[in-house]
Amino acid sequence: MLDDALKRYLDGHFDRHLDELKDFVRFRSISAQSEHIGDCRACADWLAEMLNDLHVPCRVETSLGRPAVIGSTAHKPDRPTLLIYGHYDVQPPEPLELWETEPFDPVERDGFLYGRGSSDDKGQLLPWIKAAEALRAVHGDLPVNLKVLIEGEEEAGSPSLEHYVAAHTDELACDTVAISDTHWFDETTPSVTYGLRGLAYIEVCLTGPNRDLHSGGFGGAVTNPLNALAGMIGRLHDEKGRVTLEGFYDDVVPLSQAERDAWQALGENEQALCADLGVEALAGGEVEYTPLERRWARPTLDCNGIWGGYTGEGTKTVLPSWARAKLSCRLVGDQDPEKILDAIRRYFTAGAPAGTTAAVEVLSCDEPWLMPVDSPALAVAKAAMEEAFQTECTLIRGGGTVPITAMFHKHLGVHSLMMGLGADGDRIHSPNERMSIARYRHGIAAAASLMLRLGKKG
Amino acid sequence: MLDDALKRYLDGHFDRHLDELKDFVRFRSISAQSEHIGDCRACADWLAEMLNDLHVPCRVETSLGRPAVIGSTAHKPDRPTLLIYGHYDVQPPEPLELWETEPFDPVERDGFLYGRGSSDDKGQLLPWIKAAEALRAVHGDLPVNLKVLIEGEEEAGSPSLEHYVAAHTDELACDTVAISDTHWFDETTPSVTYGLRGLAYIEVCLTGPNRDLHSGGFGGAVTNPLNALAGMIGRLHDEKGRVTLEGFYDDVVPLSQAERDAWQALGENEQALCADLGVEALAGGEVEYTPLERRWARPTLDCNGIWGGYTGEGTKTVLPSWARAKLSCRLVGDQDPEKILDAIRRYFTAGAPAGTTAAVEVLSCDEPWLMPVDSPALAVAKAAMEEAFQTECTLIRGGGTVPITAMFHKHLGVHSLMMGLGADGDRIHSPNERMSIARYRHGIAAAASLMLRLGKKG
Repeated sequence: MLDDALKRYLDGHFDRHLDELKDFVRFRSISAQSEHIGDCRACADWLAEMLNDLHVPCRVETSLGRPAVIGSTAHKPDRPTLLIYGHYDVQPPEPLELWETEPFDPVERDGFLYGRGSSDDKGQLLPWIKAAEALRAVHGDLPVNLKVLIEGEEEAGSPSLEHYVAAHTDELACDTVAISDTHWFDETTPSVTYGLRGLAYIEVCLTGPNRDLHSGGFGGAVTNPLNALAGMIGRLHDEKGRVTLEGFYDDVVPLSQAERDAWQALGENEQALCADLGVEALAGGEVEYTPLERRWARPTLDCNGIWGGYTGEGTKTVLPSWARAKLSCRLVGDQDPEKILDAIRRYFTAGAPAGTTAAVEVLSCDEPWLMPVDSPALAVAKAAMEEAFQTECTLIRGGGTVPITAMFHKHLGVHSLMMGLGADGDRIHSPNERMSIARYRHGIAAAASLMLRLGKKG
Repeated sequence: MLDDALKRYLDGHFDRHLDELKDFVRFRSISAQSEHIGDCRACADWLAEMLNDLHVPCRVETSLGRPAVIGSTAHKPDRPTLLIYGHYDVQPPEPLELWETEPFDPVERDGFLYGRGSSDDKGQLLPWIKAAEALRAVHGDLPVNLKVLIEGEEEAGSPSLEHYVAAHTDELACDTVAISDTHWFDETTPSVTYGLRGLAYIEVCLTGPNRDLHSGGFGGAVTNPLNALAGMIGRLHDEKGRVTLEGFYDDVVPLSQAERDAWQALGENEQALCADLGVEALAGGEVEYTPLERRWARPTLDCNGIWGGYTGEGTKTVLPSWARAKLSCRLVGDQDPEKILDAIRRYFTAGAPAGTTAAVEVLSCDEPWLMPVDSPALAVAKAAMEEAFQTECTLIRGGGTVPITAMFHKHLGVHSLMMGLGADGDRIHSPNERMSIARYRHGIAAAASLMLRLGKKG
């Protein structure tokens, strides 16, 4: 789909395109730190000006927690509409002393561009804009109606986004969403992600006696909240690694044999992973599934934190008044986080042993997202990636949670093409974040190819 | 056994005896705070001088962490030897703002003497010395060979004492030990304690991956140390409240029906205890025993502290590298803490799930102590208490641990008569500690009565 004129344009302008990524990375657009509100605004202005120059009229929308860049080309009824989502905000760079070069002064080295945000998400978002530039320059027009939604508080959990999307479904209405904010299966295998896990996160407090007691005077006569909470958490898994919550697996979309075969063929190196993590075995999940299947397609329940009683040096013979834990479930299609949260709440409040009471607070409730692996749109995305990277692209799922995918599906009725350009070695959220210059470069071609393929179809 | 002359002496000198207790309380003999080393020394000197004046030659022994007062009357072969143990050191008085009067400026109010150490242990120890004074003044001699061992670091866990006792068995050799450092069953029922629980205390660290992981990326594929440790702690009890450690109950001396009947007759008010503790039920222990039996005569396993993962505000989706807990068992005769500690160590190290390793550190190892409830010496102690307090004295056990009792039994081969003068309302270790003036007064008579009864026997 990429004609020679387009390829020549991309080659001829790549040095500038890389310089523009460096300019993008130089903005200290850290959403978590309020002293950088001005940097976020400047970064949003820079993006809006660039898009306006490409005839994608955009405004800087200030009704969200950080400015968002929102706009679209003039609608033409003869072509499909593509919504590009991305985020310009970045994680804080700390700890600064572990950076080998300045986080906001991007540096090329050994085929990578180093800098905070180079991979997450600036170096994955910018290819979509550069592809639009190339298509307009070479073909005089875009093959799709292009809409953009670039937010500035993704790294802060996108607290305002769902409300905005739900209230602006007409403005954002589209046939397809494309997002580049995920990782490849490995450093050399282009990948499109078609499923992500949801998240149901709670904190539980189990309260026993109204004060800390002496374990000698009362041990054995009064229910110890630490003993009790440990037991309740322990009983949430059976000996086969299955979660015992009532109805937990009811709505899980089963893995097809085709998916299992395809993932088997990916050849995950479990020994290398064990060595990297310093563990003897990849255990702790459902025994009848492979580690990759457990990470991508099976729901989990993890204790993320626990505390109570005496945790200082030496001994204190206390039978404590309370015990607390944070617990979260990763959910897969079609599990409903509300239903799972209800089951967790019931488990603790109804099951608290005699002499204790439980209180459960919900901290996160994000739906899983799963698009059919045989969706025609996925095949288009795969083909675009293969054309750009000149190698086979694989279809994968992810174990983490990107709430925007479920949000778009819920409010706009469309699935997202997750054409990630990142890789695990990019060190996102960590010091020395980097982006492969080749992935950035061919990512522009992949974005252009997708637009052409969608336009041809439409 | 208390003749009229003795009673007259005790009545006639009680005002001075109470003044002397006030002098004793005025010493800021806080063993935990090194700035009070001088106060400890002064307090020990004061005791030694008082005992020397009573013809109980004593020295201040400085080879222990805090000075100890050690001595004995000249040995006479026609009478039995009684060793009195007590401690002059006290807990720190903090928090000072909660005291209604100065902690080291004793004040009489409503039949109580208020001040730090008034009950623990100065007001329980001094009666033994005052009894010796009275017997010598009225009878010209003591009915027993009297030895004393008064330590100054009990509140700091007596770190030097066992080594001293083991190395000085000849010096401390005796027929009977008497200790007043325990509480009555309730405020009005004189009690002699004939059993105390031991303590086996460990800290366990369960380590999984070599770093904290993202629970989305790895949840389900890697054993979560928090899930695993909670499960292991949970499985340490079965559904009937029994501890599941292998061999845990093997050496437990069973409760006799006579003991169960006697304790039943004590009429513990479980409803009042529930109301005081703010719990709906006294649960969490072995279902076939009463709460009192579980506290006094059954071993327990309590988690005293647990921590790991993220424990701050909100959410962090971490699968943590490690989990830690402090666990302790209260043990009863004839359980061997070493054997129990071995079982705990084996449980965690051999049972750590795939993908984790456990490390166990021993923090305390104190033997339980139990003397036969039908020991003739116990009957003597009970009779002495009844004569002094003019009401029935009960034989009880305690749920806590007083390592000195097992230590004397092991090294000197004798059991201790625990003729406590304290009560739960004395607020030991807390602000506004107090001692009933009546218990102190009649405690002197009880001590004198015991010496007379032992002397008559011997």
